[in-house]
Amino acid sequence: MTRKHHTLFFIFLILFPLFTMSQNRLRDHGVAIGVLHPGTFNAITDVPGVQVGHTTLIEGDSIRTGVTAILPHTGNIFQEKVPAAIYVGNGFGKLAGYTQVKELGNLETPIILTNTLSVPTAVNTVIGYTLNQSGNEEVRSVNAVVGETNDGYLNDIRGRHVTEADVLQAIQNAKTGPVAEGNVGAGTGTICFGFKGGIGTSSRVLPKQSGGYTVGVLVQTNFGGVLQVAGVEVGKKLGLYSNSFKYSPDGSCMMVVLTDAPLDARNLERLAKRAMLGLARTGGIASNGSGDYVIAVSTAEECRIPYQSENPIQTVPTLRNEAMTPLFLATIEATEEAILNSLFAAETMTGRDGHQIEALPKEKVLEMLKEAGKMD
Amino acid sequence: MTRKHHTLFFIFLILFPLFTMSQNRLRDHGVAIGVLHPGTFNAITDVPGVQVGHTTLIEGDSIRTGVTAILPHTGNIFQEKVPAAIYVGNGFGKLAGYTQVKELGNLETPIILTNTLSVPTAVNTVIGYTLNQSGNEEVRSVNAVVGETNDGYLNDIRGRHVTEADVLQAIQNAKTGPVAEGNVGAGTGTICFGFKGGIGTSSRVLPKQSGGYTVGVLVQTNFGGVLQVAGVEVGKKLGLYSNSFKYSPDGSCMMVVLTDAPLDARNLERLAKRAMLGLARTGGIASNGSGDYVIAVSTAEECRIPYQSENPIQTVPTLRNEAMTPLFLATIEATEEAILNSLFAAETMTGRDGHQIEALPKEKVLEMLKEAGKMD
Amino acid sequence: MTRKHHTLFFIFLILFPLFTMSQNRLRDHGVAIGVLHPGTFNAITDVPGVQVGHTTLIEGDSIRTGVTAILPHTGNIFQEKVPAAIYVGNGFGKLAGYTQVKELGNLETPIILTNTLSVPTAVNTVIGYTLNQSGNEEVRSVNAVVGETNDGYLNDIRGRHVTEADVLQAIQNAKTGPVAEGNVGAGTGTICFGFKGGIGTSSRVLPKQSGGYTVGVLVQTNFGGVLQVAGVEVGKKLGLYSNSFKYSPDGSCMMVVLTDAPLDARNLERLAKRAMLGLARTGGIASNGSGDYVIAVSTAEECRIPYQSENPIQTVPTLRNEAMTPLFLATIEATEEAILNSLFAAETMTGRDGHQIEALPKEKVLEMLKEAGKMD
Amino acid sequence: MTRKHHTLFFIFLILFPLFTMSQNRLRDHGVAIGVLHPGTFNAITDVPGVQVGHTTLIEGDSIRTGVTAILPHTGNIFQEKVPAAIYVGNGFGKLAGYTQVKELGNLETPIILTNTLSVPTAVNTVIGYTLNQSGNEEVRSVNAVVGETNDGYLNDIRGRHVTEADVLQAIQNAKTGPVAEGNVGAGTGTICFGFKGGIGTSSRVLPKQSGGYTVGVLVQTNFGGVLQVAGVEVGKKLGLYSNSFKYSPDGSCMMVVLTDAPLDARNLERLAKRAMLGLARTGGIASNGSGDYVIAVSTAEECRIPYQSENPIQTVPTLRNEAMTPLFLATIEATEEAILNSLFAAETMTGRDGHQIEALPKEKVLEMLKEAGKMD
Repeated sequence: MTRKHHTLFFIFLILFPLFTMSQNRLRDHGVAIGVLHPGTFNAITDVPGVQVGHTTLIEGDSIRTGVTAILPHTGNIFQEKVPAAIYVGNGFGKLAGYTQVKELGNLETPIILTNTLSVPTAVNTVIGYTLNQSGNEEVRSVNAVVGETNDGYLNDIRGRHVTEADVLQAIQNAKTGPVAEGNVGAGTGTICFGFKGGIGTSSRVLPKQSGGYTVGVLVQTNFGGVLQVAGVEVGKKLGLYSNSFKYSPDGSCMMVVLTDAPLDARNLERLAKRAMLGLARTGGIASNGSGDYVIAVSTAEECRIPYQSENPIQTVPTLRNEAMTPLFLATIEATEEAILNSLFAAETMTGRDGHQIEALPKEKVLEMLKEAGKMD
Repeated sequence: MTRKHHTLFFIFLILFPLFTMSQNRLRDHGVAIGVLHPGTFNAITDVPGVQVGHTTLIEGDSIRTGVTAILPHTGNIFQEKVPAAIYVGNGFGKLAGYTQVKELGNLETPIILTNTLSVPTAVNTVIGYTLNQSGNEEVRSVNAVVGETNDGYLNDIRGRHVTEADVLQAIQNAKTGPVAEGNVGAGTGTICFGFKGGIGTSSRVLPKQSGGYTVGVLVQTNFGGVLQVAGVEVGKKLGLYSNSFKYSPDGSCMMVVLTDAPLDARNLERLAKRAMLGLARTGGIASNGSGDYVIAVSTAEECRIPYQSENPIQTVPTLRNEAMTPLFLATIEATEEAILNSLFAAETMTGRDGHQIEALPKEKVLEMLKEAGKMD
Repeated sequence: MTRKHHTLFFIFLILFPLFTMSQNRLRDHGVAIGVLHPGTFNAITDVPGVQVGHTTLIEGDSIRTGVTAILPHTGNIFQEKVPAAIYVGNGFGKLAGYTQVKELGNLETPIILTNTLSVPTAVNTVIGYTLNQSGNEEVRSVNAVVGETNDGYLNDIRGRHVTEADVLQAIQNAKTGPVAEGNVGAGTGTICFGFKGGIGTSSRVLPKQSGGYTVGVLVQTNFGGVLQVAGVEVGKKLGLYSNSFKYSPDGSCMMVVLTDAPLDARNLERLAKRAMLGLARTGGIASNGSGDYVIAVSTAEECRIPYQSENPIQTVPTLRNEAMTPLFLATIEATEEAILNSLFAAETMTGRDGHQIEALPKEKVLEMLKEAGKMD
Repeated sequence: MTRKHHTLFFIFLILFPLFTMSQNRLRDHGVAIGVLHPGTFNAITDVPGVQVGHTTLIEGDSIRTGVTAILPHTGNIFQEKVPAAIYVGNGFGKLAGYTQVKELGNLETPIILTNTLSVPTAVNTVIGYTLNQSGNEEVRSVNAVVGETNDGYLNDIRGRHVTEADVLQAIQNAKTGPVAEGNVGAGTGTICFGFKGGIGTSSRVLPKQSGGYTVGVLVQTNFGGVLQVAGVEVGKKLGLYSNSFKYSPDGSCMMVVLTDAPLDARNLERLAKRAMLGLARTGGIASNGSGDYVIAVSTAEECRIPYQSENPIQTVPTLRNEAMTPLFLATIEATEEAILNSLFAAETMTGRDGHQIEALPKEKVLEMLKEAGKMD
């Protein structure tokens, strides 16, 4: 390869994910969700320093699962904890790490998403990963935050096929830039509104006058309700509800909200709560069997909490309550769009016992959106 | 009047409120919210035995406020308490009675809604009302539940013009049947999405196979966000947001959810939580300054909790967790429609210091809905 | 009076409360609670700037009630809010203001304690007081925090004899220095472990190495259990329990915890929670009918939250989680001692319907303490 | 062996644990905690049907840990769930299963206690155990409740030596009758008030007039404060506090409260909350680094919740709020005594890096109790 070719190839490499990703995303069809603007990648990685990694397990007839890791910063998270909160939208779920985050207001590990029965494997991996990090030689207590949804319809979940190596690989795969969506990582075997769900992401950048902060959201969609896309009643039009659901609306939705705004745990919990409003706008109903959790983190460097400190007092900037409203709106919009992106990216999947879940009929949906005047 | 005329007049009396009400309501324009069907009045009073009463105070240039009372049953509520829960969507508010309902899981008074600074007047009235009820001669502790939103833009709220007589009158006005909406009672001076808000109500009746229960919702709307009507982005189209809000999205929304399903306090809290998902579907964002509360009550007769009992054990039917999902959907839909009904019913109001708030431009909105194919 | 006499009289006036108070207090009998040391007054007013005021209503045969006001600082509290949290030990109570403190993490008014049915009167007074303060001319929303216990056995509580003037007077009476205890203010008609309860207070000053902060506690005691004084089982020895309680253990305990340590709302809630552990050490059991609430506030000047600010970001010092433990211990000890002080200060009281509640038999109790080796 | 000898040996086998246990327990020295009476074994197993099993790991120089399993009934717990609640006294801990118990109000697995870093191993085991139970062939979601404390001072916790086989063995070891205390199971390597802690248990039986219910408590003690034994200030007398702690008060306390009273999840959460009051009476302060959790369960047969049911409504007896007070008292007393029992049973232990933790100096403590008149 000549040098010139080499350069072109390099540019291609950078742009390739954008191109391939672009055809799958709602916004590329001219459908804008909300009034605020997304960041460069319209992804959680628009928040500076944030990295995402996936391990996707598609093996044989019945393994359809995986792991997704979200790293709020590139340092040693245990040594430099980040302010955090978790909001429980509906607690039918097995997320690990809730009570300590609630009590202490911080996160000390990467965030891991996987399937319900692989949570302990993921926790074990995060413990080992943390114990083995340079600088953590004396650490004897680790609070891993691991979320989950149940992919047991397509995946042989009882087989518990996720290994510690798989979890570690997701952490090691983590990188900045575009984020793969759909049937990847923890979204490999999930179902959303009766269609194939998966991983989705989106972001919003606030106007300067509102602080200029970025809010990034990543979701693992595995829940139900009566689907609405940009306000168009897709689920109703497709007849997925009449007297009762034509599919189980149970499942779960994991939502991760990161922002570079300097927020304390109290306001992060308020922020997390708004992600449920974004879920509602897609037609989600937080059904009885849906474990809907939101993990919110501030990545602002000046808000990091050192594991140990000689000074018992920490002086940090925090946003006042009144400045939260634009961040609330950003979280709602990015969550709504992230969920829709997961549906647009996911493809038809066959799995355990020959179970098949169809992808969202995108052509039909886009037609509906066009008719409703939703496409610019 | 002849007997025949008398009968016709009687029919007219019954139908009159329906006719007058009908022109104000979204559903009368062929716009159905959601997939479930409303009850007879599409009102909270579709739940058997529920009564609503208003006191509307429009006096001089600057008194624009009022009181709304909701009675879950027609008996002595203190002696026959009802299972109840309150969910705090966003706690910037002064609702009275929260902690005792949370601890004991029941409601022992009528629910009162009024303006922020008149909460103590309403609490005082409810205490007096309860102390004076026949059978309550020995009662020395009363937990009044009083919700509020701040109508201080149109109303001289600092003047605290609501009297105990006004509150008592709302209780005494309470009746079954159609419920007046818009600029009445506690909604007299409220603002919603920058337009005149007020009282709104709606209901859903579950299919037999889902239990056949009724869920009724009544709202006092005084909040903001980016308005969506049946999924149509009205707020965005009307330019009410660009870089920031063109009006304050703060305010509050009080939501009252009643059902005849036999629910315990734990599942009532879960039900209450879903009303926020209904609010989200109208474009509400639970802004920092919005006090968004949901009061949920089961009116099921067999679930009443006697104030005193010789038997320390009470045996009551309760719905299992798995049977909750249809009730969640019903609550979401009825809350969304109740909020929209408040906007459709409320009329332009001028108040304190000449402040004027326009009614929702219904013609324009209906035009948008028509274009989006939302009108049957 | 000569000038010399005048000066002596002035000194007497200053010292008098100390002398009179001293004979009533447990510590003056050589009984030290815990391992930490109290401040100058062994009172909540040891926290710099804190003021306490009482209005005591003892009228005729049946009015035995009152009001106690606690002011965290001497400025305009609405304009300079303080970080705050409320912990609900047992929510059978009507405390006003909980949800907003929880959501926003701050307190914006004096704290008022009174009887259960006078809460709305107190809220109304605090609203009026705040609206009328210089600088608050545009304020249209006020979150009053008013706690209560039920003094209805000795007091004609149904008569609601506390007036707005009484509440205002308590605020205006508020001063620094020694605090009257026993049958005063909101403790005038209360009952504790079957004996006359009332107002009690205590404080702890941390060693320099733990930050040197002061924690002050004030309680309104009206609850039960099996009394323990400095670990001595007084209730059991006096036969107040055998098979069941010889008196109603219901009632309530209001606990106010102030500190000059720079704490955010999250750690204040944790601090508040520890006051319940102090209550437990006196033999309190948080019975079903006891409304046990703890209001915790940081008075640290650098943590004040201005009502309005041009800067959306506030940079404040906050104590790290690990530095909280000594404050927890201080809160537990000061709460235990404040409750015991209320019992030692309160005197036998006759009230409504000739009901009489005896004072704690101090001589007998001190004898028990002596036998147990508790008196130095 | 002759038949007679055989019978005698059998009697010996039954009585042996009682005899051996008896010398270790506070009550055997004539020290009664509280006013209520314990059950037959003064153990959590006094609640009918409850079984406890331990796996104790003492290997080489540095493995000092274990597992304790508590089974609320002898059937398939997943198929016959029990009403449950978890109260977080202080959330510095990694307990698994909290949010689902909170949401759904039930427990569906054995309760496991172990060390902090072995929680995922225990969760994994419980999942496998449940999936493999007869009747659970289609189960694809399991909410394991696993509590923990950190035994890392005596135990090589970073080595994560607890295996799935160890956890399974604890479940299989579970039996009714006397419960081993001290350095066994999950208490093998724990520290309490600076002395060797461990497993402790106690119970209370309510008088007939209060319902005659049994409350049983089991604790894993690994926390600190200023030790009080039956109200005697042992920690202060032994000089374990002067200006600051002479040892780390951090650690954690797991408390399991079982009762045969028919309670719903709401009242179980209230019951759980009272266990913290029992902890307070031993001098515990819930220090910053202490993860203090209470798991409360009703074992009442008529309250069992079938996994699947054709009837969406379940009619169950539940105790009224007012009948809770005696159960609160029972929980407080049994928790206090269970903690003290753990201290009296635990023996001096040497472990990791030659670390040694002394047993409570029982002779000295009993001397103090005698002097204080605490021994009958």
